[in-house]
Amino acid sequence: MQAFILSVGDELALGQTIDTNSAWISQQLAAVGCDILGHQTIGDSQAMIETSIKHWAAQTDVLIISGGIGPTEDDLTRQSLAAVLGTGLERNEAWLAHMTAHFTSRGRTMPERNVVQAMIPRGATMIWNTAGTAAGIRATLGKCEVFSTPGVPREMKTMFTRDVLPWVAERSGGAVILQTKLHTFGLGESAIGEKLGALMDRSRNPSVGTTVANGLVSLRVNARCSNLAEGQKQLDETVVACRAAIGDMIFGQGEDTLESVVLGLLGAKEKPITVATAESCTGGWLAKMLTDLPGSSRYFQQGWVTYTNESKMAQLGVKEETLATHGAVSQPTVAEMAVGARQRAGTDYALSISGIAGPDGGTPDKPVGTVCFGLAHAGGVVTRTFGMFGDRDMVRDRSAKMALTMLRFHLLGKPLPF
Amino acid sequence: MQAFILSVGDELALGQTIDTNSAWISQQLAAVGCDILGHQTIGDSQAMIETSIKHWAAQTDVLIISGGIGPTEDDLTRQSLAAVLGTGLERNEAWLAHMTAHFTSRGRTMPERNVVQAMIPRGATMIWNTAGTAAGIRATLGKCEVFSTPGVPREMKTMFTRDVLPWVAERSGGAVILQTKLHTFGLGESAIGEKLGALMDRSRNPSVGTTVANGLVSLRVNARCSNLAEGQKQLDETVVACRAAIGDMIFGQGEDTLESVVLGLLGAKEKPITVATAESCTGGWLAKMLTDLPGSSRYFQQGWVTYTNESKMAQLGVKEETLATHGAVSQPTVAEMAVGARQRAGTDYALSISGIAGPDGGTPDKPVGTVCFGLAHAGGVVTRTFGMFGDRDMVRDRSAKMALTMLRFHLLGKPLPF
Repeated sequence: MQAFILSVGDELALGQTIDTNSAWISQQLAAVGCDILGHQTIGDSQAMIETSIKHWAAQTDVLIISGGIGPTEDDLTRQSLAAVLGTGLERNEAWLAHMTAHFTSRGRTMPERNVVQAMIPRGATMIWNTAGTAAGIRATLGKCEVFSTPGVPREMKTMFTRDVLPWVAERSGGAVILQTKLHTFGLGESAIGEKLGALMDRSRNPSVGTTVANGLVSLRVNARCSNLAEGQKQLDETVVACRAAIGDMIFGQGEDTLESVVLGLLGAKEKPITVATAESCTGGWLAKMLTDLPGSSRYFQQGWVTYTNESKMAQLGVKEETLATHGAVSQPTVAEMAVGARQRAGTDYALSISGIAGPDGGTPDKPVGTVCFGLAHAGGVVTRTFGMFGDRDMVRDRSAKMALTMLRFHLLGKPLPF
Repeated sequence: MQAFILSVGDELALGQTIDTNSAWISQQLAAVGCDILGHQTIGDSQAMIETSIKHWAAQTDVLIISGGIGPTEDDLTRQSLAAVLGTGLERNEAWLAHMTAHFTSRGRTMPERNVVQAMIPRGATMIWNTAGTAAGIRATLGKCEVFSTPGVPREMKTMFTRDVLPWVAERSGGAVILQTKLHTFGLGESAIGEKLGALMDRSRNPSVGTTVANGLVSLRVNARCSNLAEGQKQLDETVVACRAAIGDMIFGQGEDTLESVVLGLLGAKEKPITVATAESCTGGWLAKMLTDLPGSSRYFQQGWVTYTNESKMAQLGVKEETLATHGAVSQPTVAEMAVGARQRAGTDYALSISGIAGPDGGTPDKPVGTVCFGLAHAGGVVTRTFGMFGDRDMVRDRSAKMALTMLRFHLLGKPLPF
């Protein structure tokens, strides 16, 4: 089975937005053994969309389109598809009712313009959108199955995963690529590469590659196989070998995030372990991460963002003398922040962060990127200072992740590896 | 003059690498007034490359290819181009000598494999590569000029800027595309579309389109012109017309973000205006946004993340009676949170948020997505309740943006439009 992917949108064709949908869709399709003929990006021109649909539908088994099904004038995919099919558009009453109810439930009236999003080419099938108002469309063009999905990545991914991928997977049969990812935080890509050694040989199957994103280094393990059970066995063996090489720096696998893993550890015992936060340079980012997942209120109860010295003293009981002697970015200060937060919140743990996120505020002693971390627990308080790489955004993001990592190692009962 | 862009590489077709070259090339071409027909990404297959070159060369004036001219087995663009031209490859002695000297000067012998990079289709022109060993190729196919450039972004950009863009610019007849973006928050894409009306006509120049990203609806305004001054005037007029249609819901233009605009307003007067935050469901996200930009410590001093009822009472002075009577997600509660935070922080303003981010916790009265907002100021406190669309992540992100929007309107001295 072979697929082609079409992205529609002026902002993509003109290069104002980089198309990430096509790469994502390709990865998903390849993972279930579907060949990729290629991608194409075109602007919001009905003539061009029609030509492309006709052209690619004649050459592939599956054509995935993303974009052009919003409610505005420049959304032309559904009209183009109807034209190529040689049918008109008809109103899908189920979707219209769903959209109307969606707006009503939020106390709003659906704008007239949204009605067009319930228009589906006659003979085509509406695909449910559980993340937005743009219904998808599935239509048959000769021997090609066409799937029209939203351009908004979140909506496209939800719809694709639920209603497109299973259809393709079922028909792709044969060779499959099994894949998984192992995630690390705290080591650079080259250090990970050195530890992996021969596991990264390009000719190896399963193959092991590394990808860096948002400060995490992830190991991509791909097993190409014709027998599912055999492939899974090989994949598992390679995962074991990777874990042996990297150790506890691997915090999770697959869909795991640092946040989900830490929350899992906090909830692993009968009585939830609770945590509070006291942040300076991260400005609430750590608390945000700890509350990103549903159910986080069992573990996270309160946090402070104490950006000024005055608020560190007033809210957390940091001593004026400590700030005067050691400065706001110091291990004594984060120690008092963590201990103060833990006492006031009455939690099992408290994490504190104070640092210089930049671009200004650095000194020869404490350059931009210098960040101090505290972890208060029943037995005392642990502190660390690290030099974080990157710009303001990176320093803040990595700092929040470092605090979570300190907590993770503590919850595992392992010494901090740095 | 119209161009099409072809990217070649298995890693791109399979989605392992996101193609950024096409977007970059498009922007460059558009800026000199060249129309973009679209982009296509294909794998390292000679048959496919030949087909695509033939197909697009017949339909455009310029075809830009990136990728497939490296020294390895899977680099097949030059062979494909020669096949389509119907000529063989011949060795370009100048490039061979350059490559050989390049290696010699570094004390190395040129690997035999690199010789293929001096092979150019007979009748085509070699394009100098000042950043690597892959020579570019320029060839004429009927009425189309084909430029083959490296896939490595840095090499491609150097070659494109030096030898391709000037050629296109000269022939685009001075026509240029000027562009800008206007950003809104708080209205849906369809509501924006309705307000814009005829401004969004597909045949209009300057054209106006809309793009949605992270809850913001942005208006893309593109002016196609042959005279720069005239084009800028038309662009400005359309921007004025868009602003008239949408009003204060437009918070910024170009590189502006909601955060940067609000910070700008806080710093607009001689004495910085200060703000504190009191968050429940957003868990620190609002504070994070307010501290995303350097210099934010002038305006933002402290914030509270009060996830539990107990912390709302202990840290912010919310009354037990208020929580018991109205619940944590209520306008009386966010009013007390905002007033409490403002008093304790001693700031000019305080923003508060309490809501049901989901997926659990909704009730018939207060479904998931119900979020209450408070804004305390010297003259009192304003509160609002909104139904936010989307999943947990979206509800939290949109809520933080809504709080910033409330503050923005207040700082502008305008009534909240919702």
